[in-house]
Amino acid sequence: MDARISLITLGVDDLGRATRFYERLGWQRAAESQPEVAFFQLAHQVLALYPRANLAADLGIAVAGAGSVTLAQNFHDREAVDRAYAEAVSAGAKALRTPYETGWGGYVAYIADPEGHVWEFAHNPAFPLGDNATLTLPSMTRSAE
Amino acid sequence: MDARISLITLGVDDLGRATRFYERLGWQRAAESQPEVAFFQLAHQVLALYPRANLAADLGIAVAGAGSVTLAQNFHDREAVDRAYAEAVSAGAKALRTPYETGWGGYVAYIADPEGHVWEFAHNPAFPLGDNATLTLPSMTRSAE
Repeated sequence: MDARISLITLGVDDLGRATRFYERLGWQRAAESQPEVAFFQLAHQVLALYPRANLAADLGIAVAGAGSVTLAQNFHDREAVDRAYAEAVSAGAKALRTPYETGWGGYVAYIADPEGHVWEFAHNPAFPLGDNATLTLPSMTRSAE
Repeated sequence: MDARISLITLGVDDLGRATRFYERLGWQRAAESQPEVAFFQLAHQVLALYPRANLAADLGIAVAGAGSVTLAQNFHDREAVDRAYAEAVSAGAKALRTPYETGWGGYVAYIADPEGHVWEFAHNPAFPLGDNATLTLPSMTRSAE
């Protein structure tokens, strides 16, 4: 099986509230969205917001809670982490952890979206971003050379 | 803020067990992995497996449970969904839902990894994959033309 992800679905209790939050980040709800699902085009895949009740019915399991999965957006420098954190909080995110220096040399902040889904904003000097902002592990870059 | 995800972290109770599951899918634990974190290079970002206790300490919130976020891998046809589902179950995944025809014309199966994280394997004729297996919403493809 290829190591890839095509679409990430976040279970939500209030689809309108969740949609407005991501729209306030400047992301555009795609034309494919429907009354019970909102789609957003990401750089290399798709993000979907979908009611937790529908998700639970589809899966056949309970889907309460959030936080056991985090979605990270990495940046070229610390200032961009500060800006992203401020922008998210301004858009209505819950501040979980203000930008701080990690033990591994990074600079990280955490916020939760209105549904509790955790986003990490990170500058990691050991994992530099490519020009197109794609994260490729250094060992993979070396093996491709 | 750009609409993109650089890295997806899955909280795990048993890092060794979780790592072995993804290795059985044929994914390679990257050289950057450390005793308390396993990295896997995905097509356009990075997947990390990280103990839930560490994640909770980093975030300052409880991170029990899973299922409220699903990660989907889309395929060009139904047969590939069947194969992925069989491969995952063979690798030790819990079968949540055998491949079935959805109400929206798709063909979908759900499994949970050993930590409860849900993967969807899907063929969606309305959201065709590009040649490089990247999922781009049709409305975005049209607007780029």
